[in-house]
Amino acid sequence: MESDGGSIFLQVPQSQWIASNDLAFAIRDTYPVSPGHTLVVPRRLVATWDGTTAAERAALLELMSEVKVQLRDQLHPDGFNVGFNEGAAAGQTVFHLHIHVIPRFTGDVPDPRGGIRHAVMGKGNWQQP
Amino acid sequence: MESDGGSIFLQVPQSQWIASNDLAFAIRDTYPVSPGHTLVVPRRLVATWDGTTAAERAALLELMSEVKVQLRDQLHPDGFNVGFNEGAAAGQTVFHLHIHVIPRFTGDVPDPRGGIRHAVMGKGNWQQP
Repeated sequence: MESDGGSIFLQVPQSQWIASNDLAFAIRDTYPVSPGHTLVVPRRLVATWDGTTAAERAALLELMSEVKVQLRDQLHPDGFNVGFNEGAAAGQTVFHLHIHVIPRFTGDVPDPRGGIRHAVMGKGNWQQP
Repeated sequence: MESDGGSIFLQVPQSQWIASNDLAFAIRDTYPVSPGHTLVVPRRLVATWDGTTAAERAALLELMSEVKVQLRDQLHPDGFNVGFNEGAAAGQTVFHLHIHVIPRFTGDVPDPRGGIRHAVMGKGNWQQP
């Protein structure tokens, strides 16, 4: 039995994967911030983007695009936030790289401007004093 | 004189670019949410990731990594938030694709957990009720 290295993502059964390819898989986020919030994860346990191989990066991006197509088809979102947190200081809590694909819907928040700028809490509203 | 298509990024003089390659350039954000907040932008005016060519995507990612190396060297951040907003519903306000590279520093916010989850304001604190 291979170790999962403590990654909760590797404990998700394949039956719950929503998409996959040779080097990456996609799962729903356990604590979704919007309907359809999905994580794209390398099969290999690697903590950061810089730690991935070129082949893994290609697989991750291909799967990210596939997930977006699937989400558009299923949920008809009006936009997406896409990205990753690297390091505890940046809010990373699971040290297995995961690209967030967050479908967004018109009106899901009163003022969506800023988007991932809000990763730095309290600084995202760049048009407010 | 070529039109800039209304993209404020194309109005930034090349002397202010902090890095570039054949298909992409990097500039500091005008409203930084952290010291060194940088945007990686395709030279061609294209609104979304899906609208880029494979060559542009490669150039963008290569430059993103180069920018991270530069920022690590200059500012010694403890982490990064990296990603993009796609569509007004997701908070995109300049419709010229730009990858945010946001250096993060231990203690820059009281509790950084969640990171880009906070793009959906009020939903990022998944461990709070």
